[in-house]
Amino acid sequence: MKTRVRIPSVENPELAAQVRRRWDNLTKPPGSLGLLEDQVVRLALLRGELLPRIESKAMYVFCADHGVTAEGVSAYPSEITAQMVRNFLRGGAAINVLCRHYGIQPVIVDCGVNSPCEAGVIDCKIACGTANFAQEPAMSREQAERALENGMALAEEAFARYNIVGVGEMGIGNTTPASALLCVFCGVEPAAAAGRGAGLDDQGVARKIAVIGRALALHSPQPDDPAGVLASVGGFEIATMAGFMLGAAARRLPVVVDGFIASAAALTAAAFAPEVKNALFFAHCSAEQAHRIMLAKLGVRPLLDLDMRLGEGSAAAIGISLIECALKLYRDMASFPDLALI
Amino acid sequence: MKTRVRIPSVENPELAAQVRRRWDNLTKPPGSLGLLEDQVVRLALLRGELLPRIESKAMYVFCADHGVTAEGVSAYPSEITAQMVRNFLRGGAAINVLCRHYGIQPVIVDCGVNSPCEAGVIDCKIACGTANFAQEPAMSREQAERALENGMALAEEAFARYNIVGVGEMGIGNTTPASALLCVFCGVEPAAAAGRGAGLDDQGVARKIAVIGRALALHSPQPDDPAGVLASVGGFEIATMAGFMLGAAARRLPVVVDGFIASAAALTAAAFAPEVKNALFFAHCSAEQAHRIMLAKLGVRPLLDLDMRLGEGSAAAIGISLIECALKLYRDMASFPDLALI
Repeated sequence: MKTRVRIPSVENPELAAQVRRRWDNLTKPPGSLGLLEDQVVRLALLRGELLPRIESKAMYVFCADHGVTAEGVSAYPSEITAQMVRNFLRGGAAINVLCRHYGIQPVIVDCGVNSPCEAGVIDCKIACGTANFAQEPAMSREQAERALENGMALAEEAFARYNIVGVGEMGIGNTTPASALLCVFCGVEPAAAAGRGAGLDDQGVARKIAVIGRALALHSPQPDDPAGVLASVGGFEIATMAGFMLGAAARRLPVVVDGFIASAAALTAAAFAPEVKNALFFAHCSAEQAHRIMLAKLGVRPLLDLDMRLGEGSAAAIGISLIECALKLYRDMASFPDLALI
Repeated sequence: MKTRVRIPSVENPELAAQVRRRWDNLTKPPGSLGLLEDQVVRLALLRGELLPRIESKAMYVFCADHGVTAEGVSAYPSEITAQMVRNFLRGGAAINVLCRHYGIQPVIVDCGVNSPCEAGVIDCKIACGTANFAQEPAMSREQAERALENGMALAEEAFARYNIVGVGEMGIGNTTPASALLCVFCGVEPAAAAGRGAGLDDQGVARKIAVIGRALALHSPQPDDPAGVLASVGGFEIATMAGFMLGAAARRLPVVVDGFIASAAALTAAAFAPEVKNALFFAHCSAEQAHRIMLAKLGVRPLLDLDMRLGEGSAAAIGISLIECALKLYRDMASFPDLALI
């Protein structure tokens, strides 16, 4: 994998200075738009242009099922994943409402839902859910690599169509693989990595911690072999999303990362190529407590902190709108020289 | 004043439970939209209805000049206030770009700019700037009361036209009165209350601290006499904004509060009638360091924390869009009973 993704450097001090200069000439005190100014600096460096544009936006929602739900690690039954995919197609989910509100195109991707692929969904199904990784590897190494490649191919298509994309997910049980990935890539114990997910009680959380501990002991995944880690304790949507991030970064396409699960994919992608972070904009800090550990490991400050923990790309949709708003300010505000002429 | 503003109670446990029940029936884990859910609960209680609407939105930008700038407490000259008013009218300021982006009507109010009132601006001018409160009261008690009444009258008009309003301001030097109000209403020392404003250096901040200390010693403003406090160390835009908040709360019109200066107006309004907070939604925590003290005193958690410190209603515009987005989720998402039928 590693050898096949080439992520270009975005370093360009001259361009960064030009962007800051443009911001400082606008009719406002220098720096007074805070993180909004920083987003535009990053976007301009990523795109390699002083005046980047956002004209078309998409939200990729990666969906899959998880064999580890057999261990009772989720507050909802696996069937909900397929039902939610139908809800996405029908336009009734949170992400549909947000996409309509912000003018974002939703793109639903079946990476491994445990039911036939629906019409209207992009078919990247590897299998009908992962195996139960408390007892055997979640997937084969070949499946993990296929999912990564699916993600990279999707990013190529996204690059041809959109100026900015968000990534979110739906998969009952997927905070468990995400927490396991956090353990592997951040070197923390399961007790620090596992949270309530969609609504586990204390007993459920204890079960989840035990399951992750058991799986890590069984597979001994090594952080310097991210494809192996995905095969051991990953998920199909997480692997596809990680590939998507790598492919997007290779094309310098900005990706707004949703929450806990999407950040686990980002950690995985960064294990393949740390420069993937050039393309990633982190939307929020989730109410899933261990998300802070991931964000600290990645060394990023997210845009929002609203106690959200829904997934689907819900926070990423708001994040896209904030970046778009920052870019409009940067492009459309009057400058002090203009003001003197009024 | 106090006797003339009657702010209705919004307490209604039955309605609050109905709103929570509706949220919990939507196709998402209960509570997973975090603060977005809370905003809708507050909005529904304020409006007294299960399904409030946001169809028309406005941003009121209150503008005025400040005599205390003679003490060298601002990084910009007073003339910028009038120039920025013209920038607002021409559509080139940050708040114009944000209002266009979010479909918000900007309403510019001249409360005391030191130049003739411009066409296209609402004329609530009390005088051409306050007096230098380091040497004499900023305004007379009669002027303070007139400004408060102007604000209440504007809120009546806003209530007739809009479902939600933001409040922001423009006034070179106005972090100094805002910090002085913070000292009076929160009982903190000038050194803890004064910050860099639009870009003061260390020397400027020291001067600002000394000026506020001198003014407080000179006027001894008493927090239980908010009109007297405004007369001593207030500003015309702050007094008008405080009146606007009181008038809006009396009409149960939601008001999204911008940053440091607008929060100083909120503290003042709360000194007249603490129930004003029922109507207030706090958009963000400003990079102006002492803003946190105000928010803690008011007991509120703002929506955003983006290191912004521009004013004009810039953060309030984003805040309005978040509340609108929360309301759309609440109104338009499918429910679990719907999902079972898919």
